[in-house]
Amino acid sequence: MIYDDIFFMKKALIEANNAFHKNEVPIGAIITHNNIIIAKSHNLIETFNNVTAHAEIEVIKIASNKLGLKYLKGCTLYVTLEPCIMCAGALYWSQISKIVFGAFDYKRGFSKMKIKLHPQTIHKSGIMSKESIILLQQFFKKKRI
Amino acid sequence: MIYDDIFFMKKALIEANNAFHKNEVPIGAIITHNNIIIAKSHNLIETFNNVTAHAEIEVIKIASNKLGLKYLKGCTLYVTLEPCIMCAGALYWSQISKIVFGAFDYKRGFSKMKIKLHPQTIHKSGIMSKESIILLQQFFKKKRI
Repeated sequence: MIYDDIFFMKKALIEANNAFHKNEVPIGAIITHNNIIIAKSHNLIETFNNVTAHAEIEVIKIASNKLGLKYLKGCTLYVTLEPCIMCAGALYWSQISKIVFGAFDYKRGFSKMKIKLHPQTIHKSGIMSKESIILLQQFFKKKRI
Repeated sequence: MIYDDIFFMKKALIEANNAFHKNEVPIGAIITHNNIIIAKSHNLIETFNNVTAHAEIEVIKIASNKLGLKYLKGCTLYVTLEPCIMCAGALYWSQISKIVFGAFDYKRGFSKMKIKLHPQTIHKSGIMSKESIILLQQFFKKKRI
């Protein structure tokens, strides 16, 4: 088994699918530490009736709880859609080492808003973006019916 | 009793004081709806071991739960320090009607970062900012001893 970015993004896509089946906007995320998944979740806005319950916020909470540390140095976030301003701000505070996202969010993504990540955080984009976009398109198409 | 911005900011300052006594950075927040306080909380990062547990995130969660609504239209947030990027992003998603903050955060505040609030959100600053700053200074002075 090769534990590369595609391997872990597939796990985040499984989470996005879980969101889809709960009638939540299908965005999923996982956090790894030393190639071990320590947190997985998805968008839970409708479930929790809380606009802050984005996949990234949920996995930060789970990962910190699992590690017993508020800072996520040495961890990697995989998320199917580019983080928004709120999530980029949360990731800044977490000091996470690496962020890998799938599709760009040209409307509310942090890079369009010129938000800087933490200086210790590297990021990579476009991993399985097509799969992420197709899932989002299917969701919004279903909503319109 | 006059239910003005100073009245409600004093309540947010009580919350900031509660944070101080828990050894949390003293920032407090409340949310009102029709001049009734529907949520009050403070910074809980150390308590929850979670970098996202800012006062604003906590009160958004409580207010949505209280109202049974994910959007906070018609509500006002009072917070003792200017919201950061994460919290400004969360407030954007909440569509809250008004934000009143005490002191400016010249380092990590949303206005310095040129983050735009929701077009339906108005904001006001500098309400009891001196009291907010004194409390923060006392906290960091105590931490250095």
